[in-house]
Amino acid sequence: MVKKAPRRTAERIASVSLDLFNRFGEPNVSTTLISSELSISPGNLYYHFPAKDKLVSHLFDRYESEVLGLMAASGDVQDVEDAWFFLHSLFELIWEYRFLYRDLNDLLSRNRHLETHFKSILESKTAALRHLLESMVHAKHLQMDAHTVETLSASMSVVVTYWLSYEYVRDPHHAMEEQSAGLALSRGAKHVLALLTPYLRTDGQRAHLQSLTAAYT
Amino acid sequence: MVKKAPRRTAERIASVSLDLFNRFGEPNVSTTLISSELSISPGNLYYHFPAKDKLVSHLFDRYESEVLGLMAASGDVQDVEDAWFFLHSLFELIWEYRFLYRDLNDLLSRNRHLETHFKSILESKTAALRHLLESMVHAKHLQMDAHTVETLSASMSVVVTYWLSYEYVRDPHHAMEEQSAGLALSRGAKHVLALLTPYLRTDGQRAHLQSLTAAYT
Repeated sequence: MVKKAPRRTAERIASVSLDLFNRFGEPNVSTTLISSELSISPGNLYYHFPAKDKLVSHLFDRYESEVLGLMAASGDVQDVEDAWFFLHSLFELIWEYRFLYRDLNDLLSRNRHLETHFKSILESKTAALRHLLESMVHAKHLQMDAHTVETLSASMSVVVTYWLSYEYVRDPHHAMEEQSAGLALSRGAKHVLALLTPYLRTDGQRAHLQSLTAAYT
Repeated sequence: MVKKAPRRTAERIASVSLDLFNRFGEPNVSTTLISSELSISPGNLYYHFPAKDKLVSHLFDRYESEVLGLMAASGDVQDVEDAWFFLHSLFELIWEYRFLYRDLNDLLSRNRHLETHFKSILESKTAALRHLLESMVHAKHLQMDAHTVETLSASMSVVVTYWLSYEYVRDPHHAMEEQSAGLALSRGAKHVLALLTPYLRTDGQRAHLQSLTAAYT
């Protein structure tokens, strides 16, 4: 969401760019379009961000710090309700910066800063999902051996990372629009959580998980 | 693999282009590079494929017909060995046309033919994975309700479709090279198959699955 309150120019530029990138895809948004959308001169934009790459890197850094903050909470997840909330928050964050995922490999091949950092985000995400599983095992909600924790956390990471791309391929003209967000995110969280179902220890937890995700089928 | 035997020009152009797209990414390969690699004139290339888009669409059509052929065999999968073979074949096919997956969303937004057909391939893939699960349930190797078949086949489809992208982000400089193929494909097949483990009916089948994938950990 782009906030409307007045604030520092650099932040205003960043927010409007994020919105444009998300709507049209980063390759289709020029710095000219950004400055005209903001009603500022190209020189003013240039003063803050001397190239579009710098703007992309700036937005990426914001995304990175928010993701890493959220990932740090993965060890607090104990039951399915915590897991649902955690995954939903993660999907919301990915949605907020969805332009990064729309043309991911293209961005990575053009921007060295993203290339190294995206890799480490992906590793943090997989590690966080591993902690989430370990923590649920420790809380005796899940029954899962160490080997399965390892394999399943990587598969969960793939589904988390690429769920929006999957939605995009299935419906390129609407999947990235604001009004598709709610359902897309909940479908993603539901599919990731469903991977845990057979490992839940009690039918009560399984029923609880089903009631959490039932609204979105 | 680019075959070396002489054959019709159009097919030679297609094979060399596929190889170049896979190695460097489609956006980084110009028609000039393709004709120089083939030692043919740009006019000759133009005669067969009047635009790079036509070449991409031609390769895509080849991929589509091979994928649909393989998908038709999903109903024959009964046990974990069949499933392993089926998934491995699917990953090999994706590898052969990996350029499509490297810049997927970018290609989709530029090529209307791909956009509609890729969507239907994805749907066929998800349907085939659903048939695979149903067939294994019918053969009494899997125990799984209809709702789980539905959800899990979509998640499997996401992992199958994006596994190579995941490998690419983790190691952009080597993941798409020929020598990485074997391990990357087997890791993908292993992670997809592991999603079935908790639903296998017997410890024997679980042990069999583990021995099939053990070589690749």
